[in-house]
Amino acid sequence: MPRLDFFFKPRSVAVVGATPKPGKLGRYITENLYRYPRPVYPVNPSYREVLGRRCYQSLRDVPETVDLAVVTVPAPHVPKIVREAVDTGVKGLVIVSGGFSEVGGEGARYEEEIREIIRGTGVRVLGPNCIGTYNSHVGLDMYFLPEERMKKPKPGVISIISQSGAYAATMMDYAADRGIGISKVVSHGNKVDVDDAELLEYFGEDEETRAIIIYLEGFKEGRGREFLEVARKVSRKKPIVVLKGGRSESGKRAVLSHTASLAGEYRVYRAAFKQCGIIEVEDFEEMFDAAYTLTLQPPMRGSRVAVVTNAGGFGVLCVDALSELGFELPKLPPSRAKELRENAGLPPYVTLDNPVDLTANGGDEWYAKCMDYLLSLDEFDGLLVVAQVQAPIVTREVSLKIKKALRHGKPIVFMMIGSEFTREIARTIENIGIPVIPSPKRAAKALKALLEYGRYLGRV
Amino acid sequence: MPRLDFFFKPRSVAVVGATPKPGKLGRYITENLYRYPRPVYPVNPSYREVLGRRCYQSLRDVPETVDLAVVTVPAPHVPKIVREAVDTGVKGLVIVSGGFSEVGGEGARYEEEIREIIRGTGVRVLGPNCIGTYNSHVGLDMYFLPEERMKKPKPGVISIISQSGAYAATMMDYAADRGIGISKVVSHGNKVDVDDAELLEYFGEDEETRAIIIYLEGFKEGRGREFLEVARKVSRKKPIVVLKGGRSESGKRAVLSHTASLAGEYRVYRAAFKQCGIIEVEDFEEMFDAAYTLTLQPPMRGSRVAVVTNAGGFGVLCVDALSELGFELPKLPPSRAKELRENAGLPPYVTLDNPVDLTANGGDEWYAKCMDYLLSLDEFDGLLVVAQVQAPIVTREVSLKIKKALRHGKPIVFMMIGSEFTREIARTIENIGIPVIPSPKRAAKALKALLEYGRYLGRV
Repeated sequence: MPRLDFFFKPRSVAVVGATPKPGKLGRYITENLYRYPRPVYPVNPSYREVLGRRCYQSLRDVPETVDLAVVTVPAPHVPKIVREAVDTGVKGLVIVSGGFSEVGGEGARYEEEIREIIRGTGVRVLGPNCIGTYNSHVGLDMYFLPEERMKKPKPGVISIISQSGAYAATMMDYAADRGIGISKVVSHGNKVDVDDAELLEYFGEDEETRAIIIYLEGFKEGRGREFLEVARKVSRKKPIVVLKGGRSESGKRAVLSHTASLAGEYRVYRAAFKQCGIIEVEDFEEMFDAAYTLTLQPPMRGSRVAVVTNAGGFGVLCVDALSELGFELPKLPPSRAKELRENAGLPPYVTLDNPVDLTANGGDEWYAKCMDYLLSLDEFDGLLVVAQVQAPIVTREVSLKIKKALRHGKPIVFMMIGSEFTREIARTIENIGIPVIPSPKRAAKALKALLEYGRYLGRV
Repeated sequence: MPRLDFFFKPRSVAVVGATPKPGKLGRYITENLYRYPRPVYPVNPSYREVLGRRCYQSLRDVPETVDLAVVTVPAPHVPKIVREAVDTGVKGLVIVSGGFSEVGGEGARYEEEIREIIRGTGVRVLGPNCIGTYNSHVGLDMYFLPEERMKKPKPGVISIISQSGAYAATMMDYAADRGIGISKVVSHGNKVDVDDAELLEYFGEDEETRAIIIYLEGFKEGRGREFLEVARKVSRKKPIVVLKGGRSESGKRAVLSHTASLAGEYRVYRAAFKQCGIIEVEDFEEMFDAAYTLTLQPPMRGSRVAVVTNAGGFGVLCVDALSELGFELPKLPPSRAKELRENAGLPPYVTLDNPVDLTANGGDEWYAKCMDYLLSLDEFDGLLVVAQVQAPIVTREVSLKIKKALRHGKPIVFMMIGSEFTREIARTIENIGIPVIPSPKRAAKALKALLEYGRYLGRV
């Protein structure tokens, strides 16, 4: 069993603090874990049965040695549970309970006690003060938020690391809403044991993970170097997208009081991220734009982009956004333009500059032929395509037609803005592996993520 | 009747080129205009009846002098229609048909002909090659896109000017999807007569318009100065939000081939926009964030913001985004912090720095008391509030509780990310007049729009 696998696909689980009481955190977690298709044992000395399953007095009474114990009891009781876990051969604990170093005083002492108990035993701890793990592929879910308030994402290939549980929950809800699949999520809270570096290494080796998103505020003393060394190795195999909190002076102060981490000098981080092949993003939506695009499209090998559009204004805005990010937008050479016009049967009013403006008459076939032709040329390294589908020329079959353009192995990103119908068409395009992003700047930035990653892979 | 009113609330309308043929542009427009609750007359020599109404041979046969003629016939026939309109006393024409200067040759000559026919007559023309006007308040709609592909926004107080019809349609579909109300929309296409400056002036005086969005690529020669002079006057009364296309060299080239406009030097535009109190935005979503926020919240009088959050990570990101935009984030003075903690009954683990981190235990009451207290202080000019509502502490009644904070007349913006449930709560908050924006950077930029506008109003 690979290191840390017991956190993401345990052979059996104990829920310490399981309860049938409605509204309780332990109730939500128990219900979620009961859906896990392997043995799950409720543990609570107050019950003989919890939600239809036999309940055990303590970890010592559970009839098998479980891989994982999920702990929801109040902080003062946690050290005792950890000791029982060590004694009974449990591999890992997720300590969901809060009230430890984040509140100081007694809490900090309990945390120190846990650290001492597991030292040298090989038993691993996630948390305390965390939401734990989520694995869409096996149905492991210890998130305790009500279903009516938070959607869970479909299985996918992006994995997420977040110190903050609230942040992780928001990411899952957002990904579900946007239809982006997620492989695994982990929130590690106070990091008494397992931290970012080790989790990153695990996701680096995980075959169900093809890109990693990290919301990062800072490191415990001395752990930054380790993290960057792991990142350097992992990013050769799969892209890592980082959103850094605490970039400004006020932000650093906020980080210190939020997670007692040192946010450090942002300039230093930026340089280090770049060196390690980490793709840094500046905002929440961009974080998913980048990660999603990196899992769907190949890295970009050069900075020359062609824009194809059926709406002139959005073509202009995409060209602006790409230029501002340092992309080149070469003109189509006249001989190429002539060839494309003949091949695709394009009338004189279609402008074959960059952008190629198909006008409102631009239907499926024109898109298909232009995209395929432009990517066949040495002159272009990638494509940004605008489709305004409120006008009825682009059909529901457009994705089938344009699919051929993927054969050139160069990146394509779509930019589409609209309501339900637009999203319906967008889904068909995403289903053939092309990301659709609803703003010119964000679409250009997604392409930039592919270019940055391509440059890193070209360097190492 | 105020100048140009006949384009937005005509007393009667003729549809020249009305047709019952399914899929035809003239059919969509006729159907949409038939819903207008004033007399609408179909005109087409080929029919005696169109969709149940008596059809007239020409404008001359229509039994009353109409305010507005909407023209959908092919370009070669348009000059004749314009002449009839002049002869019969029509006040304005919307020429939807394309095939004019945008295709050159014969088309450009037809356009010149139109210009000559109306010269000195007082008859006004919108277009050609445009989608015309939309007025949600009276049900005037000449947008010819299929309903299943494009939603129409609810009535509201934002009006939109866009040369491009496709762009205008996308904006309406987007606004409808986001639940943002729209007052009027106008796309003016080739601008043979009415252009941005005059439309801006009209919206400046329109009582149903409280903010104006303009997608601007450039001006016809000599019209830039006029536009800026109008903008300077209008922006004293209501905010103008501009997204400029053609900022980069490649973008300028694209503008030239898109609308034959000169995009000009972007530096010069930026300076001019600033001088005239125009709020410039950089991307599509920000355009609506800014306009919507400016209609809901008061201008901001200083740059000192407090952040309140129940999710530490998002608090950090908001503080970063605000700092990066030049806002100040003063610390809460210790005496104030003490007073707030006592007033609101906040436990010691609630950090009363900036951000105020209520933690995951932050419910409606804490939000209400903190928001109201912070805005009562001279130390702060506005508030950015993060609410993570996936956890069940914030209730469906939160908007009722926090409403009191609006009494201080200082701006408040909410930042919330999530799926259906989050949007449900967000709607209740927007209903009391506080905008909710789904990303830290975009939320900070919305507040920046209020600050820029407040600074402009303080200067003039």
